[in-house]
Amino acid sequence: MPSPVVAAWGDRVPTRQTQRELKEEILYETAARCFNKNGYHGTSLTDLANELGIKKTSIYNYVADKRELLYGIHVRSLEAARAAKDEAATEKTGLAKIRKMVFNYVSEITHSPTITFILLEDGALAPEQADEVLAGRTALDHELRIWVAEGIKDKSIVPCDPKMVSLLITGGLAWVSKWYNPGGEWSGEQLAESMSIYFARMLSTSFVDQLPAPRPAMAR
Amino acid sequence: MPSPVVAAWGDRVPTRQTQRELKEEILYETAARCFNKNGYHGTSLTDLANELGIKKTSIYNYVADKRELLYGIHVRSLEAARAAKDEAATEKTGLAKIRKMVFNYVSEITHSPTITFILLEDGALAPEQADEVLAGRTALDHELRIWVAEGIKDKSIVPCDPKMVSLLITGGLAWVSKWYNPGGEWSGEQLAESMSIYFARMLSTSFVDQLPAPRPAMAR
Repeated sequence: MPSPVVAAWGDRVPTRQTQRELKEEILYETAARCFNKNGYHGTSLTDLANELGIKKTSIYNYVADKRELLYGIHVRSLEAARAAKDEAATEKTGLAKIRKMVFNYVSEITHSPTITFILLEDGALAPEQADEVLAGRTALDHELRIWVAEGIKDKSIVPCDPKMVSLLITGGLAWVSKWYNPGGEWSGEQLAESMSIYFARMLSTSFVDQLPAPRPAMAR
Repeated sequence: MPSPVVAAWGDRVPTRQTQRELKEEILYETAARCFNKNGYHGTSLTDLANELGIKKTSIYNYVADKRELLYGIHVRSLEAARAAKDEAATEKTGLAKIRKMVFNYVSEITHSPTITFILLEDGALAPEQADEVLAGRTALDHELRIWVAEGIKDKSIVPCDPKMVSLLITGGLAWVSKWYNPGGEWSGEQLAESMSIYFARMLSTSFVDQLPAPRPAMAR
């Protein structure tokens, strides 16, 4: 029987479909957190079930296996990175594009627990999935390099090695997935703003005097 | 029978002791590479033995278990980071200290395959080992923050959030372990020099105009 589209008990009780989507989201969030913390091979479906307080067999209502979860997280994260980049591509200079992309991407990874940079462990994905993820990352890195080169040409960025700079920026972004704590002292916006300024300062031809200073801890 | 200290056949044939040390070193290098690539839980002693072309049982001549390898790599890497820091502590300003530390640390990780930043996967180390590694990393991060604060005070570093800046630098350094290829286009020295300049430029109160420009590929 298909899930009803309209809730029988009114709007305050979520429909079965909404509940299912919510549970699926929580499953993906938990998987992303565990894979990041313990590695893909270091996380079992039993670990995930225990973490969620459900039976392992219940997970199979949502995914066929652990790999499907990992692949889903990689796909979402790549899509978010692409969106961050596409939206930044309308900026005028190479520097402004990079600054905006860093801002967009950090905003995304700090706001969604399933948008994250997971290391590609060998054998974790099927070969064709691993190829797809790697190709996506390579394409993003390549475009970042093109923007750095563009910035050198339009004189917004000082002469530098575009490949090395791209790797440094990618590293800084990937690292956020490891240490950022949503309940910690910085909001996603604060971190996104600060990181984009830090990287801009690293590359800019005009002297950016002011870095974001320490702020009082957020009221939460 | 203890291994002879002087080689019976002269200097050109390594002593048994030297051979043993060499094999142990290769075992650790291979383990560091595999743990970094596939995760600790994703690497078995059988994988390591296959990689080395030896029997799994031969590994037990050198270590009691896989965990001992991981712990050894963590200890060496922490010691190297501490040495990089101690040597930089004699510099005059906060900025100069950070710049020197980045240079020293990148030199080390690019020159030794066993000095590397491995993610702390849950359950990979014994609890007291994990506590030790975490305490070592926290201490290093804390001292980095003190240097940033010192640099703000001595006016070599612009006002910024020392904690956030330390995390960005640590991330950049940790990431090198993931992507640096010793046979690639940059020598360890080139990378160490460039990265220390990039980070200095991010923080410096005086405008560092010139970033390291692209160089022709190394003759190797």
